[in-house]
Amino acid sequence: MRIVVLAGGIGGARFLRGLQQASPDADITVIGNTGDDIHLFGLKVCPDLDTVMYTLGGGINEEQGWGRTDETFHLKEELAAYGVGPEWFGLGDRDFATHIVRTQMLSAGFPLSAVTEALCDRWKPGVRLIPMSDDRVETHVAVTLPDSGERKVIHFQEYWVRLRASVPAEAVVPVGAEQSKPAPGVLEAIAEADVILFPPSNPVVSVGSILAVPGIREAIAEAGVPVVGLSPIVGDAPVRGMADKVLAAVGVESSAAAVAEHYGSGLLDGWLVDTVDASAVERVEAAGIRCRAVPLMMSDLDAAARMAAEALTLAEEVRGA
Amino acid sequence: MRIVVLAGGIGGARFLRGLQQASPDADITVIGNTGDDIHLFGLKVCPDLDTVMYTLGGGINEEQGWGRTDETFHLKEELAAYGVGPEWFGLGDRDFATHIVRTQMLSAGFPLSAVTEALCDRWKPGVRLIPMSDDRVETHVAVTLPDSGERKVIHFQEYWVRLRASVPAEAVVPVGAEQSKPAPGVLEAIAEADVILFPPSNPVVSVGSILAVPGIREAIAEAGVPVVGLSPIVGDAPVRGMADKVLAAVGVESSAAAVAEHYGSGLLDGWLVDTVDASAVERVEAAGIRCRAVPLMMSDLDAAARMAAEALTLAEEVRGA
Repeated sequence: MRIVVLAGGIGGARFLRGLQQASPDADITVIGNTGDDIHLFGLKVCPDLDTVMYTLGGGINEEQGWGRTDETFHLKEELAAYGVGPEWFGLGDRDFATHIVRTQMLSAGFPLSAVTEALCDRWKPGVRLIPMSDDRVETHVAVTLPDSGERKVIHFQEYWVRLRASVPAEAVVPVGAEQSKPAPGVLEAIAEADVILFPPSNPVVSVGSILAVPGIREAIAEAGVPVVGLSPIVGDAPVRGMADKVLAAVGVESSAAAVAEHYGSGLLDGWLVDTVDASAVERVEAAGIRCRAVPLMMSDLDAAARMAAEALTLAEEVRGA
Repeated sequence: MRIVVLAGGIGGARFLRGLQQASPDADITVIGNTGDDIHLFGLKVCPDLDTVMYTLGGGINEEQGWGRTDETFHLKEELAAYGVGPEWFGLGDRDFATHIVRTQMLSAGFPLSAVTEALCDRWKPGVRLIPMSDDRVETHVAVTLPDSGERKVIHFQEYWVRLRASVPAEAVVPVGAEQSKPAPGVLEAIAEADVILFPPSNPVVSVGSILAVPGIREAIAEAGVPVVGLSPIVGDAPVRGMADKVLAAVGVESSAAAVAEHYGSGLLDGWLVDTVDASAVERVEAAGIRCRAVPLMMSDLDAAARMAAEALTLAEEVRGA
C-alpha cells in the first residue's frame, strides 16, 4: 500500500512512527512542510523536515520532541558571547551539523529535495521524505506588538518560539508560496497513492503551508483515493502546540469540526475526532465528510499506531462506500 | 612605545603574551598571518588569527596551544556521521561559533580586517590585531605522495595537519599573494612603529606569507626603526612545529643563522639565537645583522617575557648604534 502523508513537525513525526508500526509494509511518502524554514547564522534550518528525520531515524530528543538527543549547546553559548543572535532559537551542537551540511549542499547547487534525500541516507527514516517545494516559502505572521502597539510582520518562528504565540496572529501568510512549485516527486507520489493522510499537524502553518503550494491541493483533490485526516484539536484545545492561535487568524474556530470544515469535503473524505468530541461527528458528516470518534491522544507509540490504524480503517470505509 | 609584531600561530601568540608582560604600556599592533586560512564546511577558518585572539583573550586551550578551552567536538562527530569531511581538521563546538560569525560578516560584505576587529571586541586581546590582507591568500605546498608517486599541490593545512609534514615540501606557494594588498592599517602601523619584531614563528609559512604581501616587506625595510627577530630554530631543530620541513622547500638549512640570512640584513637589524647556538652569532653578524645568544625556550610566560625583553633590549642597541 502506498501512503502519502502531509506532515508538519512533532505531531506529524510521532504520527508517522505510529503509522510505520501499524502498517510496517506500507510504502510511505512524506511531504514535509518547509514553511517554517528559517535562515539563522547564515545556515538554512528546516525544523519540520529535521523533526521527521530525527524522529524516524532515532536521533530525536524524545522529551522535547525536537532537536537531537544527547545534545550540548556550546556553539550557541559562544554565539551569544559574540552578541550574535537570535538567542531564542535553540540550535544544539549536534543539530548544527545538519544545517551546515544542508547549507553547503544548497550552496553547491543541489535543490532542497536532493539535499533532504542525502541527509536521509544517514538517518534512514524508513519513509521517503520530500520537502513540499524546492522553492523558498516562509510563513510570516502579522501581529500587533503589545508594548509599542506597532503592527509588524514577523517570521513564523519568531511568533511561535520567541513570542510563544502570546499575541493574536492577525494574519498568516506563506510568503513565496504563490510562486513556488511542488518539489520533484510530490505530485507523482500523490497521483500514485492508495491513501492520503493528514496527521494531527497544525492545519494552518503545517498542512496549510503544504496545501498553499500551487498544484498540491488540486492533485490531492483529483487523486481519486481516500483522503483522511486526524483532528489536532481535542475538546476545543490543541493537543499540543498553539494551533488555536493561528486558526483564529484564518477565521476558523478551535474545534475538531471546524478544522474538518476548513479543509472541506472537496479535499477530505474522512475525519477522525477524539472520543470527547463525539458530538462533532454529526456536524462533520453533514459537511460531507465521513467521521469517526476514536482516542486521539498520542501518549505513546502504541497510541499513535492505533490512531494510524483507525485512519487506515476509515480510508477503507471511504473506499468501499 | 609602538611595537609592530608579525605573528603566525602558537609561537607568535605565546611570544605576544610575553611581550605584553615585558612591556605592559606598549601599544602593540599584530599583523597576523592569513596564509593558512582555509574554507571548511562552507566556513572561513583563520587558524593563526584565532590562536592569537584566543591566547591573548584567555580562551585558548593551553595544552595544545590552539583551539578553545573547555571544548567539545559534537558537531564534528555529526559531520563525520554524515560522511562530510575533512575529519583531520579539529574544529570544536565552541570554535565553530567564531567561524560562523566570521563567515556571516564576510558574507554581509565586511572585509576580514573589520570582522577581526569585531571578533576582538569580545576577546579584548590587548593588542590591535590586523590580518596581513583582506584578500584571499592561501599557502599551498607541492608534494609527491608516497603511495602513488603522484605530484600534487595541496593546501598548507592538509600538508601540516593531515600529512603532519611527513613528506618533503617541494615548493611552498602563497597563492594569491602577488595580487593581494595589505589590509587597512598595516602599512600605517609599520610606518608609525618604534620597533618591529619577528617572533619565533615559522619563517616560511607564517612570517614569510606576511612578507609575501606586496608592500609589507618594503614598508618594514624602509621604516627606519629597529627590526629584531627571534630564531624559531634552536640547535638545528624547530622549537615547535615542523619549520625545518618547509625551510628545505625554500632552500634554507634548518639553523638559527641560516634563517637570519634568509630574512637578510636588508630587512633584519637584530637577531636573537638560543644560547646553544652561540656559535652562530659570528656568522649572523658577518651577514650584517646584530646578534645575541639568549635562552629562547618559551617554557612559560616568564620565559616568553624575558625573550621579549631581550628583543627590545637588542632593538635599543640597534637604535643606539
